[in-house]
Amino acid sequence: MPLRLDSRDADFAAAFTALVDGRREADADVSRDVAAIVAAVRERGDAALADYTRRFDRHDLDSSGWRIPQTECEDALAALDADLRAALELAAARIGAYHAAQRPADSSRTDEAGVRMGARWGAVEAAGLYVPGGRAAYPSSVLMNAIPAKVAGVDRIVMVTPTPEGVVNPLVLAAAALAGVDEVWRIGGAQAIAALAYGTERIRPVDVVVGPGNAWVAEAKRQLYGVVGIDMVAGPSEIVVVADRDNDPAWIAADLLSQAEHDPTSQSILFTDDAGFADAVAAAVEAQLGRLATEATARASWDANGAIVTVASLDEVPALSDRLAPEHLELAVADPQALFDRVRHAGSVFLGRHAPEAVGDYVAGPNHVLPTGRRARFASGLSVLDFMKRTSFIALDSAAIAAIGPAAVALATAEGLPAHAASVAARLER
Amino acid sequence: MPLRLDSRDADFAAAFTALVDGRREADADVSRDVAAIVAAVRERGDAALADYTRRFDRHDLDSSGWRIPQTECEDALAALDADLRAALELAAARIGAYHAAQRPADSSRTDEAGVRMGARWGAVEAAGLYVPGGRAAYPSSVLMNAIPAKVAGVDRIVMVTPTPEGVVNPLVLAAAALAGVDEVWRIGGAQAIAALAYGTERIRPVDVVVGPGNAWVAEAKRQLYGVVGIDMVAGPSEIVVVADRDNDPAWIAADLLSQAEHDPTSQSILFTDDAGFADAVAAAVEAQLGRLATEATARASWDANGAIVTVASLDEVPALSDRLAPEHLELAVADPQALFDRVRHAGSVFLGRHAPEAVGDYVAGPNHVLPTGRRARFASGLSVLDFMKRTSFIALDSAAIAAIGPAAVALATAEGLPAHAASVAARLER
Repeated sequence: MPLRLDSRDADFAAAFTALVDGRREADADVSRDVAAIVAAVRERGDAALADYTRRFDRHDLDSSGWRIPQTECEDALAALDADLRAALELAAARIGAYHAAQRPADSSRTDEAGVRMGARWGAVEAAGLYVPGGRAAYPSSVLMNAIPAKVAGVDRIVMVTPTPEGVVNPLVLAAAALAGVDEVWRIGGAQAIAALAYGTERIRPVDVVVGPGNAWVAEAKRQLYGVVGIDMVAGPSEIVVVADRDNDPAWIAADLLSQAEHDPTSQSILFTDDAGFADAVAAAVEAQLGRLATEATARASWDANGAIVTVASLDEVPALSDRLAPEHLELAVADPQALFDRVRHAGSVFLGRHAPEAVGDYVAGPNHVLPTGRRARFASGLSVLDFMKRTSFIALDSAAIAAIGPAAVALATAEGLPAHAASVAARLER
Repeated sequence: MPLRLDSRDADFAAAFTALVDGRREADADVSRDVAAIVAAVRERGDAALADYTRRFDRHDLDSSGWRIPQTECEDALAALDADLRAALELAAARIGAYHAAQRPADSSRTDEAGVRMGARWGAVEAAGLYVPGGRAAYPSSVLMNAIPAKVAGVDRIVMVTPTPEGVVNPLVLAAAALAGVDEVWRIGGAQAIAALAYGTERIRPVDVVVGPGNAWVAEAKRQLYGVVGIDMVAGPSEIVVVADRDNDPAWIAADLLSQAEHDPTSQSILFTDDAGFADAVAAAVEAQLGRLATEATARASWDANGAIVTVASLDEVPALSDRLAPEHLELAVADPQALFDRVRHAGSVFLGRHAPEAVGDYVAGPNHVLPTGRRARFASGLSVLDFMKRTSFIALDSAAIAAIGPAAVALATAEGLPAHAASVAARLER
């Protein structure tokens, strides 16, 4: 059974704080193992990759093949069922259109002192995309990670994905072909992240590594942050659904379960101002759980991490939701925009009764890679900017340095940096 | 003596690769010590801060004071020499104007399917700014870190700075007052970063931590990345100066030394197409070194890490410079813009013979916190965006979900996520 809270209860403040502070992330101390794997790949390159793949994925790269050829990805795309292919193409087109609008503009201006300055954006040369094997191998994730890189103008998009027992996922290969992935390597785990960061004999290094993964993958990204850019430190997924009693309880129950079925560590939280509606949703969740092929996972998540919070008024929601800073926030209320205007921290917001979170997972357009675990307080979803960087520039002539140089000399001198001062002062002399 | 290379030499490729790959960063394994400090502050809060401050900064926070009052910062500003105050104010105004132009625009559009979507930017609630004590306590860094946070709209800007033996740096306090810093705490090192991330009894936690620091501070930021946002993993500073023979060798020598005087690990590299000019610059560096109050540091840096690279043609420079992806790139040539157009990776570029890097350190406007150690391949300088985050949003009505929902159902089903499919399918029924 999920947690039930009521904001009118005397112990609500303490109970809600416990909900906010609850850590759902695995405490497994994988950092030493990951450090050893990273060091081995850095030192022994492909030989280390072959060893770890034999051990963790139980196949031999030399016989199963290191790289999945482009033709195999294209064949997988061509072999797709027509409806599924159309759905994947609609998703790719909508994701592409949304992200194209994110491309930043260069800037340049000359101010009254005669200083010309601005910023120029450019893409990284190469991006690595991690795609998990097994249950979480989602073609939608391939699109959501690869398309922003493509839109940014990245020259070389490199996908790594483990193929346990050598078995590949054709849907993932089809998505890679559709998204324009340039290379696909059959490696996974921390060793794949290390290979992308440092390069090996076969695999040239990349500049940025993105994509979801288990605790080992996440720790490898954290350890290699700085050697390469990374998208974010991802944790278990979560949703906050805000719903008044004018919703169909079955719709809201389905939304809560769509989060819960991802993983036992996922979290689904309902805020409502109607206790009867809360009961109806709870009953609908139970009814739907029994019909789900993903029942075991969804029930584990709902029982351990689910919560139904009844509030006296929906006016209380923005402040409470901001403390959770949820990855996904659904506002199934009469005036969702008014409520959204009062929300400060959330990864992505779904407005209205006809905007289930799952539509954003696939086809709406915005990215589904979003900050989890309260990180929407400071982090954003994946975007084109994650694959670009900005170079600032400054141009001065003799008049411009005469105008602003003396201040630089004064500050450099005060900071005890005489060569700084001298480099400016020299230009003031003529 | 610095390294001398010529691109026409047979061993140039190997020697230049060695220069690119040379690690100047300390290998000191501080990670275990930092982990212990972080854990102690998380567990014991202020008591741990008091202990570490006694041990590392040799003063007692309970008697010297935990916090430096706002009035003390304002007094420091009021007590500044008039010229210095005017210089600091010019710098603050110019930095503010440049960063104001970085504020991102919100977006919203409704597409042909009737889906309204976009993104809304907001500031983080609280930002922490680390300011080193001792030699590297620069008021210019206070401005460069605090002003973008202020421009972003951060509610609460918290500065931490160690005060060894209890001694404060009045210039730093004056800059804090000018930049609008809200709180100043007398703590430093990894313990200060931990306090900002987790909060203590006295210090409320922040959402983002920025600012330069030693290896311990950098490692603490790396370890706490994800608990809070951080600006970047910073390493030793570097400059690449590209100069033809029409420059005054003394100016170019001063520019190389302005980087070298920062730290023995700093790196200054000259590219020129004229061997005679290279010799003249080398001689000018030697001549100027003897007159510098910072001679010991600058000489250590120049001898250990400096390099003069003579190329057959400046056309070779963009490709070579891109491999270094330098933090600072000076283009002291006849047509700097043409050369810049061919450069892909650099933190900040200085165009023309009258644009010494030092003018960018203080008063030009763009940020002087820039990616080091080849990280300009994927990272950008500090900006207003580091203190903001983006929330995407999606609004659909029944017609919009009817248009794009079926594709989501198809994809969710293919991915084996039936609750995702059901949450969309429910909205298609009426």
